[in-house]
Amino acid sequence: MPKTNLDQLGINALRVLTMDAIQKANSGHPGMPMGMADVAYVLWTRHLKHNPRDPRWPDRDRFVLSAGHGSMLLYSLLYLTGYPILLEDLKQFRQWDSRTPGHPEYEIDLGIETTTGPLGQGFANGVGMAMAAKHLAARFNRPQFPLFDHYIYAIVSDGDLMEGVSHEAGSLAGHLGLDNLIYFYDDNHISIEGDTQVAFTEDVPARFRAYGWHVQEIDGHDFDAIDAAIRTAKQTPGQPHLIACRTHIAFGSPHKHDSEKAHGSPLGEEEIRLTKEALGWPSLEPFFVPPEVVAHYRLAIPAGEQAEAAWQELMTQYRQAYPEEAAELHRRLDGQLPAGWEKAVPHFRLDSPPLATRVASQQVLNSLAQAIPELVGGSADLAPSNKTYLAGLGDFQQDSPEGRNFHFGVRELGMGGILNGMALYGGLRVFGGTFMVFSDYMRPAARLAALMKLPVIYVWTHDSIYVGEDGPTHEPVEQVMSLRAIPNLTVIRPADANETAAAWQYALEQRHGPVALALTRQKLPVLPEAADKAWEGVARGAYVLSDSPLNRLDLLLIATGSEVVEALAAQKLLAERNVGARVISMPSWENFERQPVFYKLSVFPEHITRRLAIEAGATLGWYRYVGRKGAVVGIDHFGASAPYQKLREEFGFTPENIVEQALKLLTE
Amino acid sequence: MPKTNLDQLGINALRVLTMDAIQKANSGHPGMPMGMADVAYVLWTRHLKHNPRDPRWPDRDRFVLSAGHGSMLLYSLLYLTGYPILLEDLKQFRQWDSRTPGHPEYEIDLGIETTTGPLGQGFANGVGMAMAAKHLAARFNRPQFPLFDHYIYAIVSDGDLMEGVSHEAGSLAGHLGLDNLIYFYDDNHISIEGDTQVAFTEDVPARFRAYGWHVQEIDGHDFDAIDAAIRTAKQTPGQPHLIACRTHIAFGSPHKHDSEKAHGSPLGEEEIRLTKEALGWPSLEPFFVPPEVVAHYRLAIPAGEQAEAAWQELMTQYRQAYPEEAAELHRRLDGQLPAGWEKAVPHFRLDSPPLATRVASQQVLNSLAQAIPELVGGSADLAPSNKTYLAGLGDFQQDSPEGRNFHFGVRELGMGGILNGMALYGGLRVFGGTFMVFSDYMRPAARLAALMKLPVIYVWTHDSIYVGEDGPTHEPVEQVMSLRAIPNLTVIRPADANETAAAWQYALEQRHGPVALALTRQKLPVLPEAADKAWEGVARGAYVLSDSPLNRLDLLLIATGSEVVEALAAQKLLAERNVGARVISMPSWENFERQPVFYKLSVFPEHITRRLAIEAGATLGWYRYVGRKGAVVGIDHFGASAPYQKLREEFGFTPENIVEQALKLLTE
Repeated sequence: MPKTNLDQLGINALRVLTMDAIQKANSGHPGMPMGMADVAYVLWTRHLKHNPRDPRWPDRDRFVLSAGHGSMLLYSLLYLTGYPILLEDLKQFRQWDSRTPGHPEYEIDLGIETTTGPLGQGFANGVGMAMAAKHLAARFNRPQFPLFDHYIYAIVSDGDLMEGVSHEAGSLAGHLGLDNLIYFYDDNHISIEGDTQVAFTEDVPARFRAYGWHVQEIDGHDFDAIDAAIRTAKQTPGQPHLIACRTHIAFGSPHKHDSEKAHGSPLGEEEIRLTKEALGWPSLEPFFVPPEVVAHYRLAIPAGEQAEAAWQELMTQYRQAYPEEAAELHRRLDGQLPAGWEKAVPHFRLDSPPLATRVASQQVLNSLAQAIPELVGGSADLAPSNKTYLAGLGDFQQDSPEGRNFHFGVRELGMGGILNGMALYGGLRVFGGTFMVFSDYMRPAARLAALMKLPVIYVWTHDSIYVGEDGPTHEPVEQVMSLRAIPNLTVIRPADANETAAAWQYALEQRHGPVALALTRQKLPVLPEAADKAWEGVARGAYVLSDSPLNRLDLLLIATGSEVVEALAAQKLLAERNVGARVISMPSWENFERQPVFYKLSVFPEHITRRLAIEAGATLGWYRYVGRKGAVVGIDHFGASAPYQKLREEFGFTPENIVEQALKLLTE
Repeated sequence: MPKTNLDQLGINALRVLTMDAIQKANSGHPGMPMGMADVAYVLWTRHLKHNPRDPRWPDRDRFVLSAGHGSMLLYSLLYLTGYPILLEDLKQFRQWDSRTPGHPEYEIDLGIETTTGPLGQGFANGVGMAMAAKHLAARFNRPQFPLFDHYIYAIVSDGDLMEGVSHEAGSLAGHLGLDNLIYFYDDNHISIEGDTQVAFTEDVPARFRAYGWHVQEIDGHDFDAIDAAIRTAKQTPGQPHLIACRTHIAFGSPHKHDSEKAHGSPLGEEEIRLTKEALGWPSLEPFFVPPEVVAHYRLAIPAGEQAEAAWQELMTQYRQAYPEEAAELHRRLDGQLPAGWEKAVPHFRLDSPPLATRVASQQVLNSLAQAIPELVGGSADLAPSNKTYLAGLGDFQQDSPEGRNFHFGVRELGMGGILNGMALYGGLRVFGGTFMVFSDYMRPAARLAALMKLPVIYVWTHDSIYVGEDGPTHEPVEQVMSLRAIPNLTVIRPADANETAAAWQYALEQRHGPVALALTRQKLPVLPEAADKAWEGVARGAYVLSDSPLNRLDLLLIATGSEVVEALAAQKLLAERNVGARVISMPSWENFERQPVFYKLSVFPEHITRRLAIEAGATLGWYRYVGRKGAVVGIDHFGASAPYQKLREEFGFTPENIVEQALKLLTE
């Protein structure tokens, strides 16, 4: 079908709504939506499989606006095709409590598939969605039952492709041959500092071909070429697709066309008028869209309802043909774990030999993976160290998408963005591992998981200077503390195998926000004191692991992770000196902060002001619990390369030093 | 010259020392050094321009071991060629306080050019060094005086090239045509999880060609091919060089050759014996190297001394021909700022209109740049927002390397690694800007700057929820606090234009560690209270900005950045209610912690326990200063999209709310 006048009006409607909403807000990014309006129109009216009446339909195509600053493009499309974003919402663009914030914020009932804005993240989210779709298709599709059979589309910008995460996720997508991925590259030659010639002159198509992608290069304002390229992509199996679209930022604006000035500022009333005239727009009334244009877009509703109805019919037949699979699929898409899964959580016996919490984690994870088929994940090339491999459950690869072990490669940030995409997709519970020190690389993605409240689990092992010989580059010091500053992220640093098991159980019970497990490289004893208390203790965040052995309480010793056993030893030594110390294990600050005051006070009695915290990491936040009269045995400097037993002594994590610091506190 | 038997012994010496040192430490990564021994030998004996007797010689070639886990390769080369790393040091590999830690740690007097280990960082450091070399050559070389005329070599691994930062820095290096860069890619097909086929199948040569690099592919064990490839690279101008070397990890080991088991574990006594036999090594004695091999390597000393002497002679003539340039160069290489540079620091008048601290920073920076010719930097495509552009000082580009503005592109982490490389190179003072929220992307590089104590300056603007409409993805909440947890990093959040000027002055005076400036997007008044005190106040980290206006002191109000003006307003309102509050401006926690106790107590009197901190960010660490009886007006949740005035009210940063919280504190 050639382009009609109605099509042209539909394209320009995106430009007009964008200009007007941004002008009204006096804030926003008009350039990209105006430049990509042709592509978006063709995609949304001719290809995108979606149902505005049911944004949660599992077999919908996903649309990711990786260049999230162009949010008005997405909001315009959602409004026009009939999602619960109304014209009134567009007029509230970027206002308090509106449905149309500055950058798209994940809200599936509005049709917003992911939060974007930090560049490159949406690119990686889409790759994760495509991996999830491939995996679920392999698990649930059956002959004649293509339950998962759709595409992941994204618009990616120059900025997205400059970001390293686009390399990481792009290279992995090529390796995996994710042919359900169709990305449009908005090649507009403009970034904030001006022409991309100042910093970005790589041959993007050649780069993506080197990753194994199928690449097409088109004029992004050529209606037929856009349509043809999407068709070609769909007909080319075995590779992800990049459609490089040469576009002009702020297309249609007489004075801001091709200018970086159109990137992040309103065009201005006068320029909007001139643009509307240049585009032949029928009215200068702000937010005016001809009714026939809205009606044309709204054909998405009956089309979507029809498509979903056919799929629901397929599901009905599937339920009859494959009742078990259907039940499992429903359960998984509902986000419910299998009944009785908790029974798979191991309880470690007190006669177990000492074991690192990363090893305990491996045992827990492997046991849970048997009970929870949706539990999938991997590591950024550190599975043998992170102990994240799911034995016997296969590798996810192009020819084995049913595998549950994901090899992310040395791509921590890419892994983070991909995990978010997999979690967003649904039907999966995902985890990803690397060394704790490299949580730094993942931080931008972890922040977005927290912002979106995605139930992603991070397995961050080698959690302190006890890394030893690898030295300061590999020894986290400030990481655990600084992760505690991220809202909505629950950090758990278990003290032994049973706290580790409890941490995994807690993490899986969490459906609203990521959980980070901080696990040791070195062996730790299974603590008798924690055997019965670990589960409630982890859930409550802090608990009395061992109360004063004397008839008096002089001091609180508060510790996490591998320092708890040192605190217990110090408690004994202090008792010999007639000092009554209580040992508090505090695996999760966030969980503790969620407890009622009476519980908090029962663990930390108000009148006990002598408090010593022990944690092999930054002391920064500990004063919240120890107060100005307390002290912290911590590390406010970088680590060193040496056997960890040596570092333990040099850095003061022995019971003897804890006792010394405690006595100093008591005599002050 | 064809390979001799002595050459072969020299190559194998690297393998032998690596195996033995790692075995003795019972820890380390033998595979890479054994695989790259041929390349390293050819480079270090036939090409590398260096003087083991003067590792600081400015015109030396730089050698970066980006794959830092192969540290024994570097230590072996340094020992053999005669740097102050002795055989005894190799025997102390990975031990406490040794010169040979697990991963290379920057120590120029030992010949270690940068700290590596976190993958991809060394790749970016090398790009920064190459940029610095180009810039200094453009500034100081003259006809007949090629003072800066050398190469930057690096060994990069599969892991380095999987990391996104290698894309960011690689793409920029190609854009800039850095032909002084010669990188060897250790293409050994092995990563920790096994064959790179599990995750990394991109066409690396094609990828780098797409970036604009000149790429050669060779057998990394072919002596003549290695030599020829380096020669070809040197003769091919206008492009950076990648020499992809197909190698075998743990080359020579009968059972661990080509196995991921050789990556990160000692080979074992028996396998070492078998390997030495297979290599035809003349002795099984650990650490034995034939004296003639050592002697052959030590030819580096006379060769280096001769080369440096010639260069020093050139410098002598240069001093005569270009005395001013020579004096400036000496000063810059010594790390001394120009005499009187402080006079260029603006003092803002109290009748100045309100201005954002990012705008104040722009004025300060531009004034300083006139006085300090070595001050160079740029932004990750946000110069117009970060206000980092140096007006009239030109852009650093392939055809204008004398320019002082660097366009890093949307590559925050790459920028961080490049800034480190530029700072390592010497002769420059560097800064880099992005939004504060994207400091998350830079964190792995900022950590290395801190670990190496490099004087890098970060200009992180848009430092709070006052970003406003762009919403939570662009609003830092936890960043400022979590940066305070990084050892050696000084974070400064100035309250007005004069504190900003003082912060820049402090940052430039700092020679041992990075400084981060947290600057506002929104306008702030120039505070009369700070006009005289800002300089000492910033240097001391916290100071009494405005003492209680009453005859009594009931309360401390502690604030940073844009919240200081709110605290001042609250102080007035409290005085009306007969509450005497002191306002403490606390731009830098790190600087305050360095003060003597008496100063600390003079600002925070011990007996005043009612303390309220006000900062638009995470409260995590504030209890150190306010104690358990204090409180914090902060933000422990994500931000929102709305005009910032609205966010200010909703999130409680008004004087009225501060008063309310203060009164609550006083009545508790």
